[in-house]
Amino acid sequence: MLNITILGMGLIGTSLGMALRSATEDAAPLGPTVITGYDRQPSATADARGRLAIDKQARTLPDALTDADLVVVAVPALAARDLFAEIAPLLRHGAVVTDVISTKAEVVAWARELLPSSVAFVGGHPMAGSEQSGPQAATRDLLTGAIYCLTPDAHTRPEAVELVDAMVRQAAAKPYYLEPAEHDSFVAAVSHLPFLLSTALVGVTSGSTSWREMSALAASGYRDVSRLASGDPAMHRDICLTNSAALVGWIDATSAWLSDLRAQLEANDAQGLLDLFEQARVQREGWLVTRPNLRPGENDFENLGASMPERRGLLGFGGRKTKK
Amino acid sequence: MLNITILGMGLIGTSLGMALRSATEDAAPLGPTVITGYDRQPSATADARGRLAIDKQARTLPDALTDADLVVVAVPALAARDLFAEIAPLLRHGAVVTDVISTKAEVVAWARELLPSSVAFVGGHPMAGSEQSGPQAATRDLLTGAIYCLTPDAHTRPEAVELVDAMVRQAAAKPYYLEPAEHDSFVAAVSHLPFLLSTALVGVTSGSTSWREMSALAASGYRDVSRLASGDPAMHRDICLTNSAALVGWIDATSAWLSDLRAQLEANDAQGLLDLFEQARVQREGWLVTRPNLRPGENDFENLGASMPERRGLLGFGGRKTKK
Repeated sequence: MLNITILGMGLIGTSLGMALRSATEDAAPLGPTVITGYDRQPSATADARGRLAIDKQARTLPDALTDADLVVVAVPALAARDLFAEIAPLLRHGAVVTDVISTKAEVVAWARELLPSSVAFVGGHPMAGSEQSGPQAATRDLLTGAIYCLTPDAHTRPEAVELVDAMVRQAAAKPYYLEPAEHDSFVAAVSHLPFLLSTALVGVTSGSTSWREMSALAASGYRDVSRLASGDPAMHRDICLTNSAALVGWIDATSAWLSDLRAQLEANDAQGLLDLFEQARVQREGWLVTRPNLRPGENDFENLGASMPERRGLLGFGGRKTKK
Repeated sequence: MLNITILGMGLIGTSLGMALRSATEDAAPLGPTVITGYDRQPSATADARGRLAIDKQARTLPDALTDADLVVVAVPALAARDLFAEIAPLLRHGAVVTDVISTKAEVVAWARELLPSSVAFVGGHPMAGSEQSGPQAATRDLLTGAIYCLTPDAHTRPEAVELVDAMVRQAAAKPYYLEPAEHDSFVAAVSHLPFLLSTALVGVTSGSTSWREMSALAASGYRDVSRLASGDPAMHRDICLTNSAALVGWIDATSAWLSDLRAQLEANDAQGLLDLFEQARVQREGWLVTRPNLRPGENDFENLGASMPERRGLLGFGGRKTKK
């Protein structure tokens, strides 16, 4: 029997519990488990229990951790540091700790600094989410088919990595190994920059004195580009603060791109604009066809005929540190 | 019997034909119609016929126009000017011409300059679309529930306005009256700026030397914010060229917003970032609840419990020039 404890019953923590508990026997490499949930807000833990995300509700951190073999830290980035300090004396010898936080370099450093050497830490980050937050927004297939980043280093105990890898597979996600700094640089571009541009769109347009009239004309394009702006503000603040150097680089690149575009507009450069738009279209269509991070049904959603190739092999990641 | 001719069998022209032809008798203010389609590419006209968007295929412009009571120009903006010159001598006395082009000030000016005074022109622009293009992407409910901008002026014949208004209602869209310049300023913000930011995201990220590895981590957030970048490049080039002054203003506002954000990141301004993100979230949620431009099923898509209020009355547009 494996005792798993999830700390933080938000969107990801609750969805992870639902996915682990609903796995069929032949897709459950962890074997029999008991999942305990804990949240500072008891109502969130009760919600998660109601959604069948956990077997047991813990009232206190010591209750939650005393028997835990595997601990999943599912809180916003800036809450993780204090939580690591708080759980350090409560973890049993040999426990494995992982997290689901959107940035990795700082979180890994905090774990190294604060967790005892008798426990192993494996950083994690599932590439799945929603602009909704909280246990009410959780679904048991949120992680299904998602790339799940893991950032162990050469000193991490192999059994600890195996255990977290098995957890990811039991949640029907795909383990994907990379370095913390590399992870942070990549997600700044493909996850945090989209949030910032989505928020910029809402900030700029809703700040206009004509917003009330303009907003009546906003349609599905506005809806989709602005979707991420509805995300959890505290989570995104923490992401920005723990990944600011990478983000500043992408903001500068975006400002330069907009400045080039502005010059083309002022010059009435028809061919330049056509080339720019055509190139972006080709790049996005190429991504849609090859991307490995596809969830069930998204293919239909995109009206693409092609089925999804597996990540390994087809995309030329042979040189990357992948397990199994 | 009303003879309608649609020039241009792209996404909007074909979807409009499908909507008009599939209206039930009690929702068909135009009465009995014959819809003729024409496209420079005969295969597009044949596709549109196959999708039941038109009753008749015209082989030539004179064939298409000789009996037309109502002509819908559904071509990209920069093609409209030449097309107006070409159809001017072919239109029968008293015909009504409208268009579906995304910018209005220049198009209205071209119509005034090139069309004979014996015909009436009513500018139009349905606030609906897709990143897909061509007759294959058309659907009979693309316009259902969409706000449909109309830009007649004080000199436009009232019967002509009535006719186009009836066409819009028969397509199950909502007529929305405003000035051409006002229209262009509004859509620059809520339609063209989202396209530019979507394209900026793809341009900036796919231009990185790490794009191939990063792209594996891109998930549903990237997919949605980048969706518009898959749109028709020629249509967007034309939009930019016919609405460049308004767009330059919005690009400048976005650059300033990004520059402020950059300063907050560098200053580690936790409270400032939280306020900025919270404000955007509140604005977008407010828009989702009140926006009138909702299509059937979008409510479910957004997981919103509230049902959609009608536009008029609730949004304070009482002072606007609305018909009926």
